[in-house]
Amino acid sequence: MRSVSLIGAGVTSFGVRSEGVVRLGAEICRMAIEDAGIGLERVEAFFLGNFAGHAFTGQNHLAPMVAHAAGLGPVPCTRAEGACASGGLAVHQGVLAVASGAADFVLVAGVEKMSTTTTVETAEILAAAGDYESESSIGATFPALFALIARRHMYEYGTTREDMAMVAVKNHAHGYLNPDAHLQKKVTLEEVLDARPVADPLCLLDCSPISDGAAAVVLCPSEMAPDFHSKPVRVLSSVQASDVPALSDKKNIAGFQATRRAAEEAFRRARVNPEDVDLAEVHDCFTIGEILALEDIGFYRKGEGSQGAGEGETALGGSMPVNVSGGLKAKGHPVGATGVAQITEITLQLRGDAGPRQVRGAEVGLVHNLGGSGATCAVHILASDA
Amino acid sequence: MRSVSLIGAGVTSFGVRSEGVVRLGAEICRMAIEDAGIGLERVEAFFLGNFAGHAFTGQNHLAPMVAHAAGLGPVPCTRAEGACASGGLAVHQGVLAVASGAADFVLVAGVEKMSTTTTVETAEILAAAGDYESESSIGATFPALFALIARRHMYEYGTTREDMAMVAVKNHAHGYLNPDAHLQKKVTLEEVLDARPVADPLCLLDCSPISDGAAAVVLCPSEMAPDFHSKPVRVLSSVQASDVPALSDKKNIAGFQATRRAAEEAFRRARVNPEDVDLAEVHDCFTIGEILALEDIGFYRKGEGSQGAGEGETALGGSMPVNVSGGLKAKGHPVGATGVAQITEITLQLRGDAGPRQVRGAEVGLVHNLGGSGATCAVHILASDA
Repeated sequence: MRSVSLIGAGVTSFGVRSEGVVRLGAEICRMAIEDAGIGLERVEAFFLGNFAGHAFTGQNHLAPMVAHAAGLGPVPCTRAEGACASGGLAVHQGVLAVASGAADFVLVAGVEKMSTTTTVETAEILAAAGDYESESSIGATFPALFALIARRHMYEYGTTREDMAMVAVKNHAHGYLNPDAHLQKKVTLEEVLDARPVADPLCLLDCSPISDGAAAVVLCPSEMAPDFHSKPVRVLSSVQASDVPALSDKKNIAGFQATRRAAEEAFRRARVNPEDVDLAEVHDCFTIGEILALEDIGFYRKGEGSQGAGEGETALGGSMPVNVSGGLKAKGHPVGATGVAQITEITLQLRGDAGPRQVRGAEVGLVHNLGGSGATCAVHILASDA
Repeated sequence: MRSVSLIGAGVTSFGVRSEGVVRLGAEICRMAIEDAGIGLERVEAFFLGNFAGHAFTGQNHLAPMVAHAAGLGPVPCTRAEGACASGGLAVHQGVLAVASGAADFVLVAGVEKMSTTTTVETAEILAAAGDYESESSIGATFPALFALIARRHMYEYGTTREDMAMVAVKNHAHGYLNPDAHLQKKVTLEEVLDARPVADPLCLLDCSPISDGAAAVVLCPSEMAPDFHSKPVRVLSSVQASDVPALSDKKNIAGFQATRRAAEEAFRRARVNPEDVDLAEVHDCFTIGEILALEDIGFYRKGEGSQGAGEGETALGGSMPVNVSGGLKAKGHPVGATGVAQITEITLQLRGDAGPRQVRGAEVGLVHNLGGSGATCAVHILASDA
């Protein structure tokens, strides 16, 4: 299989956007193509990450809609869906298409338009990513599921509400530096702890916001990449894993088996270790999510993940910055776009183009994208290719 | 890239099923795995074709749900969606995974549970595969869109209601021989012409029914296939193409550009010509759909597609039987399952295991799966590998 590199990346600002879902997706496709310096006619395949375009906007069958609104030719257009990991899955399919030689130039986008529905409707739409029979049909929304997970982590490892709140404080401080973030606002530990309860122990500021947004990347064989971008980014590994969906079917809910498997395999294929990683974007849909991810990926031992934000190690300027984009927590979480936007952030960082939130000397970055309560996970390891 | 073969296939009976969508999908996965004679633990990746599980059943994020209900391990699970071509797209991704060497054993399923909603709700859910802005939001359901297409074909080529009705008569006669078909009932030309109008010129018997159902196939490298099945079926080509979604954006609606492109490329890659094909399953969501497909694939010259059913050439026993399963028209059309079920039918035929509807001496078969009003198309050419 061929080595694959990123030669184009683009991300919209996240938040409440006026454009419809198709236009939002088409705009970011054109932006990524322009960044890659190739013509639209060179794109041979298109993959789109989208979770619930139908429920949010009335439009299903989004891949050819977005592709043709962007001006692509009659290329294969495929939507990949894996709940909140839809973007990561789309990138994985795109990488496979280039690695296999099926295509030289592949465009991958992720998009979600969520501001169309009420908060209650949105919670119900998102809950469809959980197990209908044992969870969503009886009202277990995602804040509720992650609250159970948080409680178990607190019980097993002594994790505190303050430990979780520190993740929010850190990621909001990062988001404050990101002009594309939904919530460009610092918060204090007290503000997080005193925020309105959502599902005990999670309060409002433990939860990622409901956002519109889109992101896109252009992939090509690594050997061709320098002809198109002066700072290509190499995909060292692209790995996907799954697990039983329902919490009640998992052996332990204080961690995600799919993350452990995907990360382990991603490190093996990339031939790097956790300590070789300079920065990471991980799936902090809730503050407890980041703590779990840091442990399951292997950056921290089980039960010690809260040390990252608590001791400043995962803050910008720390030993291994995590979610310098602001993460899902502050940058926003337009579900289908998230996995692609995590990759555009690492791309920007590895190019050295991240401005005030730049991680100095960043050469290797990891992206962790989770679907549902851990039924789907995609991990990508990227490296600067200069 | 490696040559890929099918070593396992399974299809449920189509119609109103009592099982939920997850159980329906899981059952067919186990059936295909059993047919392949491999253990569940050998499956390395899972692709699922599904169009609107969320809208029909409340369950999104279906790929890991179905996979783990079937007993698969923590393998990558990806849902592919491309409207009524979702099944064909899932198979295409599965073929790519094996061809590239990313995996040796891949399971692909398609599933749709549609009997959960009223006919009006179902029409609205299906309409989301069209262009929301210019079509579905103003009430243009799929019967309406295909009625416009039929009218244009009638205007340009003199096609008659009788020509279309003959497709229904033929496919119902085929479905009568298929114990898994939704509508196992012969119909006369008069019955089709006198049926209740749906969208002029299409009447009830010009339309495929609303069905529940699932189908699955197991893929592996061709060189390993004889170790697992005595009659493996080789994938000669697997091609996908797209087109602008809205009818108003197409240059001509009396044919589908995506079908023409996908078929042309599929013949090129398979190194066969239309006259080498012994039988085909084509996307007859409406009777006019089969006529268009026969022309756009290249079996008939443009404007002459109605000759197929009209002169008996595409009937069982004719020179090139089409939709001997009954087609979407009589076998049924559980949207996400359709593209996979078309492939299981050809597999059965190429194995010589199709019973009373067996096409004698079938060696090469073509599958044509369409999404929306021609925005997505997948074409597979298969051959017996004995």
